[in-house]
Amino acid sequence: MAKIITLLTDFGLSDGYNGIMKGVIWTIAPDVSIADITHSVSAQNVREGTFMLQKAAPCFPAGTVHVSVVDPGVGTTRRPIAAHLGPYFFVGPDNGLVTALWQWAEDRGYETAFVHLDNTRYWLEKVSNVFHGRDIFAPVAAHLANGVPFASLGSPIHDAVRLSLPQAQRTARGWRGLVNIIDNFGNLSTNLNHTHLKDIKKPRFRIGSHHIDGLVETFGDCKPGEVVAVFGTTDDLMIAVVEGSAKERLQGGGGDGVEVEETL
Amino acid sequence: MAKIITLLTDFGLSDGYNGIMKGVIWTIAPDVSIADITHSVSAQNVREGTFMLQKAAPCFPAGTVHVSVVDPGVGTTRRPIAAHLGPYFFVGPDNGLVTALWQWAEDRGYETAFVHLDNTRYWLEKVSNVFHGRDIFAPVAAHLANGVPFASLGSPIHDAVRLSLPQAQRTARGWRGLVNIIDNFGNLSTNLNHTHLKDIKKPRFRIGSHHIDGLVETFGDCKPGEVVAVFGTTDDLMIAVVEGSAKERLQGGGGDGVEVEETL
Amino acid sequence: MAKIITLLTDFGLSDGYNGIMKGVIWTIAPDVSIADITHSVSAQNVREGTFMLQKAAPCFPAGTVHVSVVDPGVGTTRRPIAAHLGPYFFVGPDNGLVTALWQWAEDRGYETAFVHLDNTRYWLEKVSNVFHGRDIFAPVAAHLANGVPFASLGSPIHDAVRLSLPQAQRTARGWRGLVNIIDNFGNLSTNLNHTHLKDIKKPRFRIGSHHIDGLVETFGDCKPGEVVAVFGTTDDLMIAVVEGSAKERLQGGGGDGVEVEETL
Repeated sequence: MAKIITLLTDFGLSDGYNGIMKGVIWTIAPDVSIADITHSVSAQNVREGTFMLQKAAPCFPAGTVHVSVVDPGVGTTRRPIAAHLGPYFFVGPDNGLVTALWQWAEDRGYETAFVHLDNTRYWLEKVSNVFHGRDIFAPVAAHLANGVPFASLGSPIHDAVRLSLPQAQRTARGWRGLVNIIDNFGNLSTNLNHTHLKDIKKPRFRIGSHHIDGLVETFGDCKPGEVVAVFGTTDDLMIAVVEGSAKERLQGGGGDGVEVEETL
Repeated sequence: MAKIITLLTDFGLSDGYNGIMKGVIWTIAPDVSIADITHSVSAQNVREGTFMLQKAAPCFPAGTVHVSVVDPGVGTTRRPIAAHLGPYFFVGPDNGLVTALWQWAEDRGYETAFVHLDNTRYWLEKVSNVFHGRDIFAPVAAHLANGVPFASLGSPIHDAVRLSLPQAQRTARGWRGLVNIIDNFGNLSTNLNHTHLKDIKKPRFRIGSHHIDGLVETFGDCKPGEVVAVFGTTDDLMIAVVEGSAKERLQGGGGDGVEVEETL
Repeated sequence: MAKIITLLTDFGLSDGYNGIMKGVIWTIAPDVSIADITHSVSAQNVREGTFMLQKAAPCFPAGTVHVSVVDPGVGTTRRPIAAHLGPYFFVGPDNGLVTALWQWAEDRGYETAFVHLDNTRYWLEKVSNVFHGRDIFAPVAAHLANGVPFASLGSPIHDAVRLSLPQAQRTARGWRGLVNIIDNFGNLSTNLNHTHLKDIKKPRFRIGSHHIDGLVETFGDCKPGEVVAVFGTTDDLMIAVVEGSAKERLQGGGGDGVEVEETL
């Protein structure tokens, strides 16, 4: 089986912290392939991190170990954890970062299990208060990729922190949702998806004071500057400005409401 | 033979899209090595992308599959293609992104062949309208690296889109060329190269209203702030400001004219 | 043994230069794993580069070849060198970039050896004046990872350039040190460390006109906006602003003085 570890953090790319984690991983598991998902999660934004992880993780092969470190509580009493979520493993802080991937696994009927990483045998010998990515998460992930059983990593727990991620709400003629994440291009990705929209004829979308009639198939069909609704990379409803930024145009931000209703 | 895939896109590094492509590739071809060339091509700038690909691709070993995605037409009728260009493969949109590498291969007398990627067997099962990098190009590249014959990927075509890349023009006493790309340091890389300059004695360069007398061997020989002409990383004539930015100083931009003439 | 090469440069990520180095490496040594440490060293800042290399390099397995290119003198008479520093190899320009890792090796009693890379057999055939990372350092590192003996790479030298890195100075009641590097979050990492502080009871720190009483264990214990002293990722004394930037708040820069004294 392929041995793959992914890294998702808010460390940025300039200080070498992700390179350091690779060094630790390859010291323990020299034949692992490592993919950076992103190191540009907004600083300490666990909510953004959980959505980004959920978007990328399921594209990896079964057995992949996803190391995610957005960790405002590093060095405090927050627990280091690992999760077994169907085909994937998660290693990171117990602060809700795993939530969206956990939900994804449950939605597909996968079994899930969690451990508190309290078996120090799989940590580096010396553990700092500021960089558990290097000292705990990277080595644990490497041992896991090497075949160390999940259950050996620590004590089973059943109370891992789970963020409350708002679900779309039914309205009289449609659904009310929220912007979950905003990408690099300023596209607003919402918690509405294909499932919510499949029975709505002639949908009209409202975000702030802006209305959009109908869904487009692809940006290529539209005029530059047009505000459109389109399905995104994971069947999420996305509000976008063609060759522009919906974030700037609509002043959208995490948490902004988006409504859809049938106009037929 | 080494199995190597490179990625060049305009996705940026913050949203995890390149990580997602790696997940797809490793699901199909777990033993492939993947190199990011860059994910910072200016948004939808196919012309810049083709130059950057051409600059990097020939440094890779024979058999490397270069996946390039600068794709304003994603989801429209623009075709997904693959090209066999001497020692390399290209996989990406049919929008001219392959042009400079194609030209490179022709200049060296390599055989070239193109297919329309219409064999859906090598795609992901579900294809979105917004992310062919994940759904078509990454899986096709992985299968190609796995040894799937090029000809199996789709129907042969002979009309792949080719950008018209301006060639340097002869003038009375020299050549007239153009700035092709501007790098991170503000250096202006032109379509003039060693071939154009080898017979010009005591060259004088003109860019906008600025004159430069002679070529320097290396930045190390010059004074900070000096505007110089120097051969770049691929024998391209480069206009640079020592420890500064020629882009800022000369207000250079893609398409700016550069002339060289003999002053002897 | 694992074959690992790391890259640390000031090239940035947008121009594809680090991808090009990977292509060269994999052409010579197809089974090497390559980790980017960082490509965001401040342009031509050798001093910053040496600290960043020293911070990351020792996290890699024995035998790792560290290629580092911050190289204002490229194309001049500055020598290309390689160093054998205990468990690690360094390949790069002879401008002091190796200093902090060299010091690290000496502090641990490792043997050290240097060669001038004058055996052109391990270079690319054609060498430019502007990109020795591609033409000399990447191919030499690949051959080294392939098992070419260190001594074959060139002539032994005993006068490699060594930066004078200021050491902490004893004061009447403590130590006077300096800010070495500033990270992405604006944290100020100093040349004071655990060794200097272990015998100081109730330490008080001074940086510019700012005083800090005591060391904190972890950011999680502090109030947002608080200026704190804390041990960093390598036991370095770090001055930080909780959920903020010490760089902005204290106007700190490379070279700023930091003092600690006992207040008991």
